[in-house]
Amino acid sequence: MKRRVFLKSAGVGLAATAVAAPAIAQSMPELRWRLTVSWPKSLDTLYGGPEHLAKRVAELTDNKFQIRVFAAGEIVPALQVLDAVQNGTVEAGHTASYYYVGKDPTFAFDTSIPFGLNARQQYAWMHFGGGNQLFQEFMKDYGVHPIPCGNTGAQMGGWFRKEIKKPEDLQGLKFRIGGFAGQVLTKLGVVPQQIGGGDIYAALEKGTIDAAEWVGPYDDEKLGFNKVAKYYYYPGWWEGGPQVSLYVNMKQWESLPPIYKAALQAASGEVNAWMVAKYDAQNPPALRRLIAGGTVLRPFTREVMEACYKSANELYAETSAKNAKFKKIYDSWVQFRNEQNLWFRVSEQAFDRFMNDKSAQRKS
Amino acid sequence: MKRRVFLKSAGVGLAATAVAAPAIAQSMPELRWRLTVSWPKSLDTLYGGPEHLAKRVAELTDNKFQIRVFAAGEIVPALQVLDAVQNGTVEAGHTASYYYVGKDPTFAFDTSIPFGLNARQQYAWMHFGGGNQLFQEFMKDYGVHPIPCGNTGAQMGGWFRKEIKKPEDLQGLKFRIGGFAGQVLTKLGVVPQQIGGGDIYAALEKGTIDAAEWVGPYDDEKLGFNKVAKYYYYPGWWEGGPQVSLYVNMKQWESLPPIYKAALQAASGEVNAWMVAKYDAQNPPALRRLIAGGTVLRPFTREVMEACYKSANELYAETSAKNAKFKKIYDSWVQFRNEQNLWFRVSEQAFDRFMNDKSAQRKS
Repeated sequence: MKRRVFLKSAGVGLAATAVAAPAIAQSMPELRWRLTVSWPKSLDTLYGGPEHLAKRVAELTDNKFQIRVFAAGEIVPALQVLDAVQNGTVEAGHTASYYYVGKDPTFAFDTSIPFGLNARQQYAWMHFGGGNQLFQEFMKDYGVHPIPCGNTGAQMGGWFRKEIKKPEDLQGLKFRIGGFAGQVLTKLGVVPQQIGGGDIYAALEKGTIDAAEWVGPYDDEKLGFNKVAKYYYYPGWWEGGPQVSLYVNMKQWESLPPIYKAALQAASGEVNAWMVAKYDAQNPPALRRLIAGGTVLRPFTREVMEACYKSANELYAETSAKNAKFKKIYDSWVQFRNEQNLWFRVSEQAFDRFMNDKSAQRKS
Repeated sequence: MKRRVFLKSAGVGLAATAVAAPAIAQSMPELRWRLTVSWPKSLDTLYGGPEHLAKRVAELTDNKFQIRVFAAGEIVPALQVLDAVQNGTVEAGHTASYYYVGKDPTFAFDTSIPFGLNARQQYAWMHFGGGNQLFQEFMKDYGVHPIPCGNTGAQMGGWFRKEIKKPEDLQGLKFRIGGFAGQVLTKLGVVPQQIGGGDIYAALEKGTIDAAEWVGPYDDEKLGFNKVAKYYYYPGWWEGGPQVSLYVNMKQWESLPPIYKAALQAASGEVNAWMVAKYDAQNPPALRRLIAGGTVLRPFTREVMEACYKSANELYAETSAKNAKFKKIYDSWVQFRNEQNLWFRVSEQAFDRFMNDKSAQRKS
């Protein structure tokens, strides 16, 4: 009798722990993922984003969910991240969606389209303006679940060997510029060139191209463009707030336990703030170094900006007329952008303008 | 003998699960926290920040770490969050540090000081400009571990019953304005009033005060200020990018397992991007409604802005001279701010200005 009592109580005890152990194994299984990115390791802010993500996810899961980050070219070429995630070569990627506008121009909205949103507005559109739903729906056809995961802030207009004073100066210019923006500039006579980050310097040095844009002072200095071009133009009107994204293979995403989905979402949200902040902290000293080294800063003239703005709007009308997916997102997006600018004209712009005027008065 | 065998094997079995169970129990113990905030539930963006945090932390921990959010006044008054966290009445709080400048003006840096950083620059300062280290060190004396957890973006300058055209118009003005900014305005003859959010409307309606500032269109509309004051001024130069923070009782923080620390950090980082985005999405339609209802938008004149800027700089010099803790942070902070403005003058400002000009041309 005593033994039966013992067996029974031991059984109860074992059952209790047996309930706990599989529950934990199920909610936090051991998982190893490969994440391939579009950036070389040297660009420690773009590359640092997915690295921060991987570190945070490991911390959040007691190292049970481990993500290994591979730089551009290590296992997948820089501009083939989408394909690799889509066909399951890797579980995840980190890239800029506008690299894939050749497949469909609609991809551009996830990163930035010319004369679009600044970094804050882009995040607001994704999370509170319908952007996430629209883009997730669009990417279902590619078997990928996208999550916003970083932003560079407004980029620079790039490095030019000659000054650009009027729209005519763009005629015949061989300009390394990515994606959709190239099509805008084609209307103004530019010959856009698609060249991976690592090969731009050589092309500009040899004169194969006349100009090149990349990101901003901190990254551009690393790639050495200041050594082969004198004029550094701003603003990069085609990338007022370019977002980079975490791509997750849809089957992998759907099979994740809720804790791991939450970990990817929370860490990606954190990386968004983290990446912009890292760029903002690192760009000012880089800009100072570039100017001290002889780089000449130039704003695009109003005339050039207006010509590009007109060209961009024409392209949006043409693309909307022939691509229903593009039109669906554009119509929602443009309304959101216009409302954002209405609001930013008030307090944000008035505050920033005053502070920037004070900065100019300091002449430092 | 049989019984002893059974006991032994049962013991082994229990030992095996006992190794796993305490490991999990140790890294993810059941935890219930109370988090008191400075906001009423009706302000669903400020209040929504800690709510989002609590929800995310629960998801990240399989509901083992549960945080219950209490609105202002439910268990702790709105402006006593610091004390409640410090003395352990609650484990955590969500508040604006500048509510506590009465204890020490140094508290203001964690939120915003007049003519300070915009939302992006504030986050960059905290995470890459030394802000977090400096403020965490400062708050050790209060037994609190602070984590940046949200931002409203540049606030509005507030609601005025009469127009403010020149600095003299500020003389004798009874203005509901929080913290450090009140001291700047005192130099210009303003009589600052400290009034909790829920009591401002009545004071403005009765004429106990002449003007009041709160946050921006979305929140201000909820509190009904447009019904009792006509002129809505901008920018809120005292809050170009006010940050709100998660306060964690230091002993509670130190006793947290690493997974829970990571959960609070990741979720707070995410809330930072989340809150600014929610404000950005909700402010434009609120502003439209206010204007349609008769609110008159007015920019502070350059003359008024310059007088306030001068007054602020005088106050910083005076405070630095008598408060070493303030001086230590100010000296680091002001250098970072100046570098930020140098950089923002270039691409960010040029891009935003062009887009805002286009918005003005649309006259919508």
